[in-house]
Amino acid sequence: MESIQVILKSRPQGTPSPDNFALATIQLPELQEGEVLVKNRWMSVDPYMRGRMVDRKSYIPPFAIDAPLEGGAVGEVIASKNSDFPVGSKVSSMLGWRTHFVSGAKGLTQLPTLPISDEHFLGALGMPGMTAWSGLYPVGKLQESDTVLISAASGAVGSVACQIALNAGATVVATVGSDDKADNLRAKGIEHVINYKTCGSLTKAIAAAAPQGIDLYFENVGGEHLTAALNTLNSFGRIAVCGMISQYNDTVPTPGPANLANIIAKRLRIEGFIVSDHWGQYAEFSKHMAQWLIEGKVEAESTVYDGIDQATAAFIGLFEGKNTGKMLVKLA
Amino acid sequence: MESIQVILKSRPQGTPSPDNFALATIQLPELQEGEVLVKNRWMSVDPYMRGRMVDRKSYIPPFAIDAPLEGGAVGEVIASKNSDFPVGSKVSSMLGWRTHFVSGAKGLTQLPTLPISDEHFLGALGMPGMTAWSGLYPVGKLQESDTVLISAASGAVGSVACQIALNAGATVVATVGSDDKADNLRAKGIEHVINYKTCGSLTKAIAAAAPQGIDLYFENVGGEHLTAALNTLNSFGRIAVCGMISQYNDTVPTPGPANLANIIAKRLRIEGFIVSDHWGQYAEFSKHMAQWLIEGKVEAESTVYDGIDQATAAFIGLFEGKNTGKMLVKLA
Repeated sequence: MESIQVILKSRPQGTPSPDNFALATIQLPELQEGEVLVKNRWMSVDPYMRGRMVDRKSYIPPFAIDAPLEGGAVGEVIASKNSDFPVGSKVSSMLGWRTHFVSGAKGLTQLPTLPISDEHFLGALGMPGMTAWSGLYPVGKLQESDTVLISAASGAVGSVACQIALNAGATVVATVGSDDKADNLRAKGIEHVINYKTCGSLTKAIAAAAPQGIDLYFENVGGEHLTAALNTLNSFGRIAVCGMISQYNDTVPTPGPANLANIIAKRLRIEGFIVSDHWGQYAEFSKHMAQWLIEGKVEAESTVYDGIDQATAAFIGLFEGKNTGKMLVKLA
Repeated sequence: MESIQVILKSRPQGTPSPDNFALATIQLPELQEGEVLVKNRWMSVDPYMRGRMVDRKSYIPPFAIDAPLEGGAVGEVIASKNSDFPVGSKVSSMLGWRTHFVSGAKGLTQLPTLPISDEHFLGALGMPGMTAWSGLYPVGKLQESDTVLISAASGAVGSVACQIALNAGATVVATVGSDDKADNLRAKGIEHVINYKTCGSLTKAIAAAAPQGIDLYFENVGGEHLTAALNTLNSFGRIAVCGMISQYNDTVPTPGPANLANIIAKRLRIEGFIVSDHWGQYAEFSKHMAQWLIEGKVEAESTVYDGIDQATAAFIGLFEGKNTGKMLVKLA
């Protein structure tokens, strides 16, 4: 059995380009006792993967050159020598960026039987959804009375975060990069949506949308967004720092906000987090999220690229704002 | 009875200059029933006062033009129509920057009878000491196993913070602005002291002093210090943000650190605080601090300017690093 994989040819300098990647076809080994052959149906591309393309020590090791990339995927067992994963089992794994793989059971999770499409296990019910929930609840201590600012609000994490906050009864102020994305969020019931590319002063736009001030900022962007949040947060406000996508492709580091003294005057709490530190709470999260998805209280959209040869374009598209909701690649 | 007061003539632009201040002699009113006449013996000058010289909304109202400045002071009741404060009572108040004042009992605190010099109630046993303790304990969650980085470590807050952390059994890395100040801290048992003006790369100097990394950073300075702390903090490190004195006299805002993405990768918690939010814990703090002072486990130094006409010079000196320990003005 052959597998087509995407490998990292060279480390991107600045914005990733197609040259940094290549397709490779490999022959998979024969199944050994305990192993399964999985055909991936969906794979995920996520902004955090940009960080793994840099050769540095971090919370997760960097991708190796000439090796296949990794990431979330869901697929189906098509041959099995493991009775826990019979043929037909649907599984999620971190072995995306390839059409097929052979694996022992370790690292495979059987998808629960729910009236929810498989691809949501890479989105609202998977890592991005759990990220949104972790930033709002264990990190951000979301309260019903909060006014919550969410940036990159039409992305996989942001769009789910908006809807979780709305379900909690909070007031949501969302920022996005196009009028289409803004309309899309408004259709989900988010009242205050700002197109940061056309709004003029972001601080003034947020202050106008939330004259009562911001209590919790879900940070996905960095840069001007962080400056505007520091300006508009209330005393004892919180920032859950999930990402700073505006800076992931910087070749020269961008200076931070000039208004950090607000941290003192407003007694702000700023806390960075990574979803993997919160997996222990996945059961609690998924119970709520599955219910919300089934009831339509979270609408999980995705932007789909078709085929393993489009995986690189899907990934690069993340940094060009080409996705509304979760960016996915359909493999089969 | 006359009182000599320091009034704010104009709002400083950038570094405060003597022109921004003036002395005024006023005639105090006759004592009414319930009032006392206080002769101030010591007054405090503190960096936070710079913030009150700016006309803006903040956690404390700005100083008014042509009105006397305010700040911590300790003095003695020299005439009294209030039986709770008989003549001879020693009191602390927020009515510094003047030689005498008339006041009702409100806002006066009787000094406890302890074998501790009065001026320490403006320093280690007063606002600066309580600030150090609040940043380390309720905000910073100091642990014995921590390596603690403290900036402006020879100042009123920093020098006490160093010694509290040392008393807790923590490893302390301190930064100061002169070799004399460094020697002074080493004499108090602080092993790792860095002169940031001569050390070259501050990040490298901290990493060399603490190869195990920093767990808690007590932030008094901002700018390059914050950058270096973000570089050297361990995962799940904390920053207690007390002040950013390097920026208080900026006329153009200084950009922040370019390495804020460390907040995510290291899951840092950054929390700003103001001592007045923690006064409820003063009794707990002062019990420990009084004991430490009596036992010599905190050595509280001060730099003393003499006379109300030197108060302005003492205040301006804070921004020139002229103090070792608490900056005080002796009034009588």
